[in-house]
Amino acid sequence: MNDRIRVAVLGRNGRMGSEAVRAVEDAPDLELVAALGRGDDLQDVVDAGAQVVVDLTVPSATRENVRFAVAHGLHAVVGTTGWHDDALAQLRDQLAEAPGTGVLIAPNFAVGAVLAMKFSELAAAFFDSVEIVELHHPRKLDAPSGTASRTAELVGRSRERAGRGASPDATESDPLGARGADVAGVHVHSVRLQGLVAHQETLLGNTGEQLTLRHDSFDRVSFMTGVLLGVRSVAEHPGLTVGLDGYMDLGL
Amino acid sequence: MNDRIRVAVLGRNGRMGSEAVRAVEDAPDLELVAALGRGDDLQDVVDAGAQVVVDLTVPSATRENVRFAVAHGLHAVVGTTGWHDDALAQLRDQLAEAPGTGVLIAPNFAVGAVLAMKFSELAAAFFDSVEIVELHHPRKLDAPSGTASRTAELVGRSRERAGRGASPDATESDPLGARGADVAGVHVHSVRLQGLVAHQETLLGNTGEQLTLRHDSFDRVSFMTGVLLGVRSVAEHPGLTVGLDGYMDLGL
Amino acid sequence: MNDRIRVAVLGRNGRMGSEAVRAVEDAPDLELVAALGRGDDLQDVVDAGAQVVVDLTVPSATRENVRFAVAHGLHAVVGTTGWHDDALAQLRDQLAEAPGTGVLIAPNFAVGAVLAMKFSELAAAFFDSVEIVELHHPRKLDAPSGTASRTAELVGRSRERAGRGASPDATESDPLGARGADVAGVHVHSVRLQGLVAHQETLLGNTGEQLTLRHDSFDRVSFMTGVLLGVRSVAEHPGLTVGLDGYMDLGL
Amino acid sequence: MNDRIRVAVLGRNGRMGSEAVRAVEDAPDLELVAALGRGDDLQDVVDAGAQVVVDLTVPSATRENVRFAVAHGLHAVVGTTGWHDDALAQLRDQLAEAPGTGVLIAPNFAVGAVLAMKFSELAAAFFDSVEIVELHHPRKLDAPSGTASRTAELVGRSRERAGRGASPDATESDPLGARGADVAGVHVHSVRLQGLVAHQETLLGNTGEQLTLRHDSFDRVSFMTGVLLGVRSVAEHPGLTVGLDGYMDLGL
Repeated sequence: MNDRIRVAVLGRNGRMGSEAVRAVEDAPDLELVAALGRGDDLQDVVDAGAQVVVDLTVPSATRENVRFAVAHGLHAVVGTTGWHDDALAQLRDQLAEAPGTGVLIAPNFAVGAVLAMKFSELAAAFFDSVEIVELHHPRKLDAPSGTASRTAELVGRSRERAGRGASPDATESDPLGARGADVAGVHVHSVRLQGLVAHQETLLGNTGEQLTLRHDSFDRVSFMTGVLLGVRSVAEHPGLTVGLDGYMDLGL
Repeated sequence: MNDRIRVAVLGRNGRMGSEAVRAVEDAPDLELVAALGRGDDLQDVVDAGAQVVVDLTVPSATRENVRFAVAHGLHAVVGTTGWHDDALAQLRDQLAEAPGTGVLIAPNFAVGAVLAMKFSELAAAFFDSVEIVELHHPRKLDAPSGTASRTAELVGRSRERAGRGASPDATESDPLGARGADVAGVHVHSVRLQGLVAHQETLLGNTGEQLTLRHDSFDRVSFMTGVLLGVRSVAEHPGLTVGLDGYMDLGL
Repeated sequence: MNDRIRVAVLGRNGRMGSEAVRAVEDAPDLELVAALGRGDDLQDVVDAGAQVVVDLTVPSATRENVRFAVAHGLHAVVGTTGWHDDALAQLRDQLAEAPGTGVLIAPNFAVGAVLAMKFSELAAAFFDSVEIVELHHPRKLDAPSGTASRTAELVGRSRERAGRGASPDATESDPLGARGADVAGVHVHSVRLQGLVAHQETLLGNTGEQLTLRHDSFDRVSFMTGVLLGVRSVAEHPGLTVGLDGYMDLGL
Repeated sequence: MNDRIRVAVLGRNGRMGSEAVRAVEDAPDLELVAALGRGDDLQDVVDAGAQVVVDLTVPSATRENVRFAVAHGLHAVVGTTGWHDDALAQLRDQLAEAPGTGVLIAPNFAVGAVLAMKFSELAAAFFDSVEIVELHHPRKLDAPSGTASRTAELVGRSRERAGRGASPDATESDPLGARGADVAGVHVHSVRLQGLVAHQETLLGNTGEQLTLRHDSFDRVSFMTGVLLGVRSVAEHPGLTVGLDGYMDLGL
């Protein structure tokens, strides 16, 4: 088929990269034209005729990879972390000179996690109370999770914009810290349980009603739905997009 | 306070109406200027200087109530059922002649239920599978619930727009009907359990991940959050709005 | 009907007592023969021919009420708090002299809460990880709830008996206390949310599986199921029983 | 270490068998002395000095395997299906002649699933309403699941013993079958969702309260907890035991 999108995967030996190689190969509308590991020559991507580069490498490599792609007119879908404000600003400058080229940088490619976060932010303005419970496997080193902290910050900002104060809370005695962490005015609770992977609930309450938004990530392979969505949509979104929700037509 | 919104409640003796009377009285930014029951004279509402009329009466009365309100330049917030297409068309015509006046007709005033339905519709486009479980007290006469059917229809339409077919399902043997109802291509399951009030879950699944949107309605008083939101916002929304989500600033 | 159980309720004006009056009246196999408030004469209970006394009074009155009942050969079902070890020991002594008489003292009459606690204790011996999440209305003054603390203690003791150590937990960084309280080696998390009443989850995890035991208390009336179970069963359980689970035939 | 239990695994190439080989090798108190596949000689198990045989083969082989084991004084832990009443009766006869030997036949080795089923049975006697929701991946061929049907039967029998009738249900109109299957008088609902593995909820309701018992099986490896429990306990349970709960000290 001539009109399949030609895709190159960078970081083919990593956990995410190897899943991406498989996912692109399995997708009937995509064609894997190159898959590079550490030390391979980026020029191969151009020679193979790639249209979209998927970067799932490491923070020390991702900036140069994306710079190279944009310089050669290739779109990029990036799941690597390490893009701080300076790096984003430089990339925006470069893209201003390459008007048809699109780059998506997404900290999370699980469609459900992205929606849960977005819906939490939207709903938080309409409820008296909001709290977050995140649940992970017991090998996790930090609490709360990065996703829970980001969700709490989005929720906190949304409530501020809506002129809402803190959730009501009459607690006078909590000697052992059962009420958990306070992140941006939102209580966050971290459960660690054998058997779990990565799960999060946003609990919202008004008088007489509750809204619960829960995301379960059972397997890393869930990220691939979002990577493929990115690959298929990046050409229609010139310039820089941060966050997969920018590609999800929520009518927002 | 001079700038409180002056509110009249129609249907003050009904279950919803009596809650609304109490809620308006309790709200510091609202003033209850009239509360009418069956047989009372609508002119009282005008004489009392009401700005917003809340109609929580019965299908046989609501059309005339709203017609009267609009004819006198009063905004209306309507929770009564019975507004079929003809009635809505006539109301739209009347409102075209009353440019500053707003009417909100909402089948459901529970903010959480409205958001759960909206989020279900939005998310359905991004998942392989969607099913709905609704749970109610065992005195309910019909299954599935009206809310579940409406949600399934919105979900079904959303998936059609996104070019998604039916959820995958290899079931070959189901002699007892355990797979539940099919509404607009979406499986709907109805649980009836002592102790429950009204609850609904939309379950969405992709490879490796699940998104769950759950609404619990514990008490009819939950509707008041939405009624008050309507009263406070109706003046800023001239013309006819159907559905509380039209007043919820989701960035839509 | 001659063979209905004749019941007296003490504390008829309290929240629990008034519910109990109604529940006894509504039960076809029970007959309410007396309902006493503060200051009424206990002798009325005897004169009315009561067989079972339900004590839902206050800590300062309950001991004398039960002493009086046992002295007159009446069974007692007690929901009042304030029974410390000394009081229980004295009651046991008194019951040793009244061989046919039964007393049930139960801190919690919600059948589901009692079972959730019992099942948590039983299951805890078979799982690598156990944590508890309790969720209450935001007017609650203390965290964690008494029920959650008691459950954690039962769980902790059960794990000790089974030779199980602490749940695995690699957390190195938790600057804000997201991991919650440690009660008897079990993490307990307290959520406070508008709209909720009293809810609790015990989460248990092994490699590849999770068991969740959740109890929702939507309304105080849930206690009546247990009170009636107590009234109907107390005559078959001579002596002192502490905890409603002593009357629940779990085959345990 | 001399006092490790010496274990032989039959069916080493199957999905369950290969997991069992790994689990026995990883357990410090067990020693894998033999692992047989199709066509291997059972005598190897005896020659290797096995004390416990784990049978995870196929229905056509399991009876002869267990007969051989018992004839040689070896304990057996059996996860293979296909043990109908006749086969069990013959095995009981054989075991009557081999007084010290124990055999465990378990249809389900996931500790959490076994407990969820047992707790459902116990709790069902104390609630007005019980329903079951099972959720599986969409490649499953039959609905409801075997585990859900068995749970419903246990629940139904438990309610019968307690003199409880059907759960209350006023449903008059259910044209699409949303109320699901009726198994032994218990409503069972089957959800099929991409991303899921095997999950089940028993929902129990009384006036004002709900008890939810949920089991999530995320990975087949969850069965190994039960297999190892069986291997470690079989010597202490001479004769035939059907069901892992017979080895779980619930105080039953």
